[in-house]
Amino acid sequence: MKRVFQLPQEELPKRWYNVLADLDQSLPPPLDPRTQEPVDPKALLALFSRECIAQEVSTDRFIDIPEGVLEVYRLWRPTPLFRAVNLERRLQTPARIYYKYEGTSPTGSHKPNTAVAQAYYHKVEGTKRLTTETGAGQWGSALSFACHVFGLKCLVYMVRVSYEQKPYRRIMMEVYGAEVVPSPSPNTAAGRRVLAENPNSTGSLGIAISEAIETSLNEPGTKYSLGSVLNHVLLHQTIVGEEALLQMEMAGEFPHVVVGCVGGGSNFGGLILPFFREAKKRQRLVEFLAVEPIACPSITKGEIRYDYGDTAELTPLIRMHTLGHRFVPPPIHAGGLRYHGMAPIITHLVEEGVVKAVALDQVDVFEGAVVFAQCEGIIPALESAHAVRAAIDLARDCAKTGEEKVILIGLSGHGHFDMAAYRDFLEGRLPRLTTSPVSQA
Amino acid sequence: MKRVFQLPQEELPKRWYNVLADLDQSLPPPLDPRTQEPVDPKALLALFSRECIAQEVSTDRFIDIPEGVLEVYRLWRPTPLFRAVNLERRLQTPARIYYKYEGTSPTGSHKPNTAVAQAYYHKVEGTKRLTTETGAGQWGSALSFACHVFGLKCLVYMVRVSYEQKPYRRIMMEVYGAEVVPSPSPNTAAGRRVLAENPNSTGSLGIAISEAIETSLNEPGTKYSLGSVLNHVLLHQTIVGEEALLQMEMAGEFPHVVVGCVGGGSNFGGLILPFFREAKKRQRLVEFLAVEPIACPSITKGEIRYDYGDTAELTPLIRMHTLGHRFVPPPIHAGGLRYHGMAPIITHLVEEGVVKAVALDQVDVFEGAVVFAQCEGIIPALESAHAVRAAIDLARDCAKTGEEKVILIGLSGHGHFDMAAYRDFLEGRLPRLTTSPVSQA
Repeated sequence: MKRVFQLPQEELPKRWYNVLADLDQSLPPPLDPRTQEPVDPKALLALFSRECIAQEVSTDRFIDIPEGVLEVYRLWRPTPLFRAVNLERRLQTPARIYYKYEGTSPTGSHKPNTAVAQAYYHKVEGTKRLTTETGAGQWGSALSFACHVFGLKCLVYMVRVSYEQKPYRRIMMEVYGAEVVPSPSPNTAAGRRVLAENPNSTGSLGIAISEAIETSLNEPGTKYSLGSVLNHVLLHQTIVGEEALLQMEMAGEFPHVVVGCVGGGSNFGGLILPFFREAKKRQRLVEFLAVEPIACPSITKGEIRYDYGDTAELTPLIRMHTLGHRFVPPPIHAGGLRYHGMAPIITHLVEEGVVKAVALDQVDVFEGAVVFAQCEGIIPALESAHAVRAAIDLARDCAKTGEEKVILIGLSGHGHFDMAAYRDFLEGRLPRLTTSPVSQA
Repeated sequence: MKRVFQLPQEELPKRWYNVLADLDQSLPPPLDPRTQEPVDPKALLALFSRECIAQEVSTDRFIDIPEGVLEVYRLWRPTPLFRAVNLERRLQTPARIYYKYEGTSPTGSHKPNTAVAQAYYHKVEGTKRLTTETGAGQWGSALSFACHVFGLKCLVYMVRVSYEQKPYRRIMMEVYGAEVVPSPSPNTAAGRRVLAENPNSTGSLGIAISEAIETSLNEPGTKYSLGSVLNHVLLHQTIVGEEALLQMEMAGEFPHVVVGCVGGGSNFGGLILPFFREAKKRQRLVEFLAVEPIACPSITKGEIRYDYGDTAELTPLIRMHTLGHRFVPPPIHAGGLRYHGMAPIITHLVEEGVVKAVALDQVDVFEGAVVFAQCEGIIPALESAHAVRAAIDLARDCAKTGEEKVILIGLSGHGHFDMAAYRDFLEGRLPRLTTSPVSQA
């Protein structure tokens, strides 16, 4: 039985898919918090590249991937799509399970797909340095790598608790030549404000975002880069779904269910959007399942409203699922899923009934991850393990009903940096969150 | 310019290459230390599978890979071969540099190539459990993975200092369902002997080997597995070189130099042996360069003689390059290269003048690894980084002479488990070994 579907490099897709062209209504625009009016795109030029701002509102169905980006993608793309033969056997399910694996990228996750694109456009437009925030470090290491490739400097504000307790991704960033600063830092007014109140602050993603944005606004030649949520980030990630479409065709399949984990929504969006387009075209009913941690249940327990993207209220207001921009999730291991908001595109698709969501406890997620690792060999990143566990549950349902569902999992990264968390799980030291930290909205 | 050469899965080689068929003279046999006579293969049945013992002395040029092994190989094989375009640019060299990358395997190195084969044969022959030793854990995690795939139990004796200080690969083994015991342990006479002398012993690979062998000899249904040195291990690793041959053909190239790191020699042998065969057939002059750490310079400073494979003198005597079976190398980070001996096949090829060797200091190796990571994205395992550094030196020489050498590097694994070592390097805390710990032989 065929187990790996490897797209020839010649067939690497050359266009990203822009779902804005195919939505029944346009997305509500980001608002300037002072005026409550739509943000003037020009105001965003202080932060983002001209090209990414244009992509943010483009309604072109396809956008060509520049050759300079394709050249870097070819370091690891196309990524493989696997049939989970051993997992199917273990679950004794009639379901056919596939997974699209992004862990073979240089930094071990899907994040470089947009990091490379953003760094490329900045390089072309003359930016000298990029700055960003990072929690555990998946995004920061991806941007560090991308900046180095294009000869840009990179400054990463890393949440202090991760900087100190999870140094390995920090070192990875430094190997790629980035400057990594623990946040809160004395470099910025935002950082100094926090340190004045609490010199021992361990930081938060919200503070780190504020520091990165402030740096970008104040230092000429330095711009800001965001790793999720925004339309252009999801756009760049559609390379994942476009490849997976072709690979599922090689397998002679079209999925009944596509499952991915959601933090800000870029991994999930990148995988599902091309399938959303094709399902419409082929009039196929496909279930798109977003999996979030019950510790940070933006879709299943959040509200849909305008909210800030960051704690310090420096970003425009964005209409999205939100747990409130001051929400601080419990310290679960899947750091990449600890975001209070959601990509507006995903929020829109939830409202349209296209995307369903489910929230899982991390103990259940780890159980699924270990089963997967034992069957398929790959140890999933904890974020990706959320999708794995949800897919296992679906496949077990099929074992009961006899349904031959085709399930596609987005396996967004490997877990080689997550071994301390696996240790806590194996040693029974992980608490189960019996109740969600968020009361029912 | 084409950057990745991805072999279609249909072209995964179906045979291993056995170099014993093509050596001008047969290798001196292993000796029983008590009698100094060649070891009776039957005596080895207490440790190894019948099939592997047969492979150890076979002179068939090709040995079919069983379908049950191929099926597991397909989880990650064929692995990619890359042209190091960015590295070439950085070095401004006319050399064309390629690397064969084994880091996409489930455990991140080349070790599963033989682990899967060994576990498969044991499964077929009715073995219930395998035991082995591991230092930092590359081999132990590969065998744990392979055992789980075939439903065998796995017991790994892990050198205590690594067990305590480098827990991540231990956890990986446990995720794959293996039992991991810090060595020296009270489980074995060998372990108890050491603990009686020194209850705080941090262990050594030599002691761990003794414990694994003793367990295998004493417990019915349990056999032993070795991850390097032996002929059948190099045989299984030739899958790497066979793929690389086809991929270099896709690139329209045949290498002038093939460079790999050597610990026990299985990664290096697996890569070069198929090229050795083809170079002979095509009457091409190819340089095969083995790179070792100056902390453990088996080839460049060792003697060629009969010696034990382990510290406790439980193995047969093997004729090989050796630093003496009681040699304890300084604690360098590339744990996989800290072995006193060498695969007899490699020793033979050095004697024949086919293989050359060079020894590098780890500080130089890290410098090369960081240059490579910045250009190619992949952070090399420290073992593999030895080959990378040697290749960089060759390419720099080409920049001076103008030679358009084709250089093929064996990149045997990723460095995502080596970040603490990269930190030590970046922070300038790595000592340079100004003199080798071994006096000139």
